[in-house]
Amino acid sequence: MVHQIYAGKAKEMWTTEDENVLRVVYLDQATALNGKKKDHIDDKGKTNNAISTLIFKYFEANGIETHFIKRISDTEELVKKVKIIPLEMITRNYSAGHFASRYGVEEGKKFETPVEEMCLKSDELDDPAINASQAIALGIVTQSQLDTMWVISRKVDQLLTPLFEKAGMQLIDFKLEFGTLPNGKVILADEFSPDNCRLWDTKTHHHLDKDVYRKDLGELTPVYQEVLQRLEKVILL
Amino acid sequence: MVHQIYAGKAKEMWTTEDENVLRVVYLDQATALNGKKKDHIDDKGKTNNAISTLIFKYFEANGIETHFIKRISDTEELVKKVKIIPLEMITRNYSAGHFASRYGVEEGKKFETPVEEMCLKSDELDDPAINASQAIALGIVTQSQLDTMWVISRKVDQLLTPLFEKAGMQLIDFKLEFGTLPNGKVILADEFSPDNCRLWDTKTHHHLDKDVYRKDLGELTPVYQEVLQRLEKVILL
Ligand SMILES: Nc1ncnc2c1ncn2[C@@H]1O[C@H](COP(=O)(O)OP(=O)(O)O)[C@@H](O)[C@H]1O
Ligand SMILES: Nc1ncnc2c1ncn2[C@@H]1O[C@H](COP(=O)(O)OP(=O)(O)O)[C@@H](O)[C@H]1O
Ligand SMILES: [Mg+2]
Ligand SMILES: [Mg+2]
Repeated sequence: MVHQIYAGKAKEMWTTEDENVLRVVYLDQATALNGKKKDHIDDKGKTNNAISTLIFKYFEANGIETHFIKRISDTEELVKKVKIIPLEMITRNYSAGHFASRYGVEEGKKFETPVEEMCLKSDELDDPAINASQAIALGIVTQSQLDTMWVISRKVDQLLTPLFEKAGMQLIDFKLEFGTLPNGKVILADEFSPDNCRLWDTKTHHHLDKDVYRKDLGELTPVYQEVLQRLEKVILL
Repeated sequence: MVHQIYAGKAKEMWTTEDENVLRVVYLDQATALNGKKKDHIDDKGKTNNAISTLIFKYFEANGIETHFIKRISDTEELVKKVKIIPLEMITRNYSAGHFASRYGVEEGKKFETPVEEMCLKSDELDDPAINASQAIALGIVTQSQLDTMWVISRKVDQLLTPLFEKAGMQLIDFKLEFGTLPNGKVILADEFSPDNCRLWDTKTHHHLDKDVYRKDLGELTPVYQEVLQRLEKVILL
């Protein structure tokens, strides 16, 4: 029987007739502070679905294998079911957010080489930072899986940085999630949207991402729609 | 003029007539919770000085270069002045302390391969965890310095684990600090004492380290003196 397997903070995951396929439902919901701040946001679900679909198709067109199968409605897509590796793989091109506050540096400082860091995906533990040695010791991941995930993260960065640049945005940082197929192969999963990255307008340096919500800077959906429109102009598939 | 250059939480650092040499004074003081808990502890200074002297001599006798020159009184030693690399280099043979609480695992679990992690030495920032990529991006350290520090940390672990074992103690985890000599060479600095490692009695699993103070389990100095006496029996220099 088709049933919901996960009610996340931004999406629901449902089984389908095909045991290898999940249906993702993007919700009109935003959360911050590990769920302590939570709001209904009209049209957020369909905007994120559209953005993530566009970007995942761009990944596939450029040789990055992902879980994405197809968008099936405004707010829904089908994806290959994977076993999620419970690590948030974060790449930072510029200092911002937790990096800036945790290490006492200003925001917007460009790194010579992108910073790569991880958090353990765990609501109970509040997504603590974790390094490779720790994650391997805990049996969460192997060194070879980590190598694969960082290789793909670097490809993503090298692909998206010039793309967003063309669209008038700086890709400040982003978070990826990966999972394993039944054959063990590690592929990109989850989503790529302004919920999971920081985008600054190249000229004004205004936030074009979830920081608008985190920092109460105004309406979120119009900002996400702006990102979508800019991306539609530069992603020609 | 000879003057104090640093008043730390457990030691004072003084210049000497020789600009390349510092005098360390071990204090009768213990702190925890980044200095929020702080107490005078009779005879702690001389006990730690004795333990650290013994262990640093053992390092030198076994080919590990350190800042140690000589002990000059109960509570004082002379060391080579280095530029401290502000990273706490932590090696964990068993889960305990922050590792256990942060990742929700029980204490005392042995790791197949020791866990290696770092904290940024910064009282203002509360010694945040930091990984190699972050530390390099912040200009704190180079990859080659990190490589050297981990090579030395592993030597220390391989040297001390059987030594403490012989003395009836499990080396649960330890923290090292490194610094650079004027010629750029990275050497082991600071101290090695029950202030900076966890030691469990092999049979009873009782704490023989600063956790006695952190957790208010009793008098600290008698415990440190016990560690010293056990070490004196197995370190024959
Ligand atoms: N292809 C996939 N197969 C299985 N699980 C997935 C897949 N892609 C993403 N997920 C997981 O589904 C959940 C998506 O819901 P979301 O609202 O983003 O959750 P969260 O609140 O954990 O961020 C996440 O836990 C994510 O790891
Ligand atoms: N050889 C050395 N040269 C210069 N500084 C040193 C040397 N060895 C240790 N230090 C530094 O001296 C201080 C020792 O005092 P301590 O009480 O341990 O300080 P803290 O409160 O920072 O732990 C530390 O900051 C340590 O990094
Ligand atoms: Mg999510
Ligand atoms: Mg110290």
